[in-house]
Amino acid sequence: MRRSPFFEATVEDGVVSFSPYNHMLMPTGYGDPQAEYERLVNGVAMWDVSVERQVELKGLDAARLVQVLTPRKLDKLKPNVGWYVPICDHRGTLINDPILLKLSDDCFRLSIADSDMLLWSRAIAAERGFNVQITEPDVSPLAIQGPKAEDVVAALLGEEIRQIRHFHFKSMMLDDIPLMVARSGWSKQGGFELYLMDGSKGYELWQKVKQAGKPFGIGPGNPNPVERVESGLLSWGGDTDDETNPFEVGLERHVDLDAPDDVIGIQALRNIKAEGIKRHQLGLIIDYDGKLSYIDRNSPVMVNGNKVGEVTAHAYSPRLDQNIGLGLISKTCQPGDKVTVVLPEGAKVSAELTALPFNVA
Amino acid sequence: MRRSPFFEATVEDGVVSFSPYNHMLMPTGYGDPQAEYERLVNGVAMWDVSVERQVELKGLDAARLVQVLTPRKLDKLKPNVGWYVPICDHRGTLINDPILLKLSDDCFRLSIADSDMLLWSRAIAAERGFNVQITEPDVSPLAIQGPKAEDVVAALLGEEIRQIRHFHFKSMMLDDIPLMVARSGWSKQGGFELYLMDGSKGYELWQKVKQAGKPFGIGPGNPNPVERVESGLLSWGGDTDDETNPFEVGLERHVDLDAPDDVIGIQALRNIKAEGIKRHQLGLIIDYDGKLSYIDRNSPVMVNGNKVGEVTAHAYSPRLDQNIGLGLISKTCQPGDKVTVVLPEGAKVSAELTALPFNVA
Repeated sequence: MRRSPFFEATVEDGVVSFSPYNHMLMPTGYGDPQAEYERLVNGVAMWDVSVERQVELKGLDAARLVQVLTPRKLDKLKPNVGWYVPICDHRGTLINDPILLKLSDDCFRLSIADSDMLLWSRAIAAERGFNVQITEPDVSPLAIQGPKAEDVVAALLGEEIRQIRHFHFKSMMLDDIPLMVARSGWSKQGGFELYLMDGSKGYELWQKVKQAGKPFGIGPGNPNPVERVESGLLSWGGDTDDETNPFEVGLERHVDLDAPDDVIGIQALRNIKAEGIKRHQLGLIIDYDGKLSYIDRNSPVMVNGNKVGEVTAHAYSPRLDQNIGLGLISKTCQPGDKVTVVLPEGAKVSAELTALPFNVA
Repeated sequence: MRRSPFFEATVEDGVVSFSPYNHMLMPTGYGDPQAEYERLVNGVAMWDVSVERQVELKGLDAARLVQVLTPRKLDKLKPNVGWYVPICDHRGTLINDPILLKLSDDCFRLSIADSDMLLWSRAIAAERGFNVQITEPDVSPLAIQGPKAEDVVAALLGEEIRQIRHFHFKSMMLDDIPLMVARSGWSKQGGFELYLMDGSKGYELWQKVKQAGKPFGIGPGNPNPVERVESGLLSWGGDTDDETNPFEVGLERHVDLDAPDDVIGIQALRNIKAEGIKRHQLGLIIDYDGKLSYIDRNSPVMVNGNKVGEVTAHAYSPRLDQNIGLGLISKTCQPGDKVTVVLPEGAKVSAELTALPFNVA
């Protein structure tokens, strides 16, 4: 296990739990889930997301390689912009869903979910004889998320950051701390990610963000398991399994079936599309008074005694005042259908399927 | 994170710590490190090592694929035998060191260390157009290790297991529990690994082993961080970094430079061998009275004020009554040389380099 550059700072600020992710520890709570949710939804939160490791692809064939790695056509991707891209294996199965950051025509970074894209990219590059260097650079994201995030980042780095558009990024110095400042983040509450480019300055950066955020009530948090379910944000490896393709989990808009034939999985994706998918990700609104404490991942979803899918995530939504969930559900079921969820001890609850995201507005 | 089939049983038996490994939790202690070490070295211990995930390669081209994956020549590997094989990337860097089990001419399993060989094997197989199915089967190893391990397994499964030779394995039923029984394990104390072939029977298997082992004083344990340093057993990812080749860490005997030219990394390995390696793994005998509590991984090893390498593991050896360590050290240093190790707070201790394994006999 490697240590986050923000580790000491998060311990000082009262982190109470971690989850392993990309061979590092990701903070998963600071002891007051409700306050952490409130900060994200109504204020501003700062997250150690250094576990979003970076895979850098640099060299003559870097652009060829990234296009081979994703079925999203990249010809319109410009420098200083990041795109959300599905990465599939040769079967068309989703094996990661990173942000692809274009630094220049011959240098890209993948900001990855929890599977080994360093290993995967190196295998593909070497097998295809591409001239590209693939490394994990010293880059660690710190996210600032929530409706007041922009004000905090402006206080920290100047008003110019307000000009940074969604998914664009910009290299900046914060005193002696080198950063890439991106308008992005794994929530629907808006905000920025500061890509720290010098791991020795993690503690310093954390303190500066905390200081700048004080007038706005900033506090520590982490990728929020409630807000992300409400917002229908995909958690790769949580909401997906070893058979999940991008069409099943709402990523169809990021798959270009006319991408070049040498793109990994493109032929499989065309076939899947032609045949039609068997499952789709839907929301579940669970018929239960009060806060349901726990639903097992992979709890069966049933219709008339037949299994039609599985729950992949569950949360009690404060904004909906309802228990909600995400499921991978048979295409025979549609939003509006009534289903039954089998709880860990065999008890059953009714639920209604719904389109995503949930209507929390 | 996935759950081990032995999880409930290990919790019942008092597991106090875990470490993430291959997206699962590996027990790392039951509260009495000294007793756990003693059992392994003088008695018998049972370990939940289900984190040694299995990657199954099956089909017409399975044999071609496994030979491409490792620079160890496999033409003499027979069914029902497992071999320790280095797996390298195209640079000749060690990316895993599994046991390769040959089930039949067209079916193999890799029992892997902590990196994603499912992803790697699939990339290589698909890029080369091999006809092979690559899956993670429902197989979970339970290790029985120590000088009394053979007696326990004989009591459990019959005297015939005494005929199983080192690294050989045999399919057997224990009542209704399907097993592959192998004479192997990540210690130098002798023993067996029971490959459980039905994850729903983990609790039952654990109890049966415990029962059979009772007369021999069996108790729970885990891959032992002290015994493995004494024995010089390689911990991939612990003792290796993103530049380590097999020659540096004592695996030269498992690299055949006359392996076929299409083996991944073979040309790089030939070049490395021709040019000579720059580092080698050596033991460190540390000059310190009493038990040294902690040495950081990557603590510098110095000679005359110059850094010559890093410590990769440290343990207090009860059998040697000495603090010992493993290091990746410059080839300019040899066994017998005196070095200085820099401790976390900057204090320095003297040490002597030594060949591996340590002389604990």
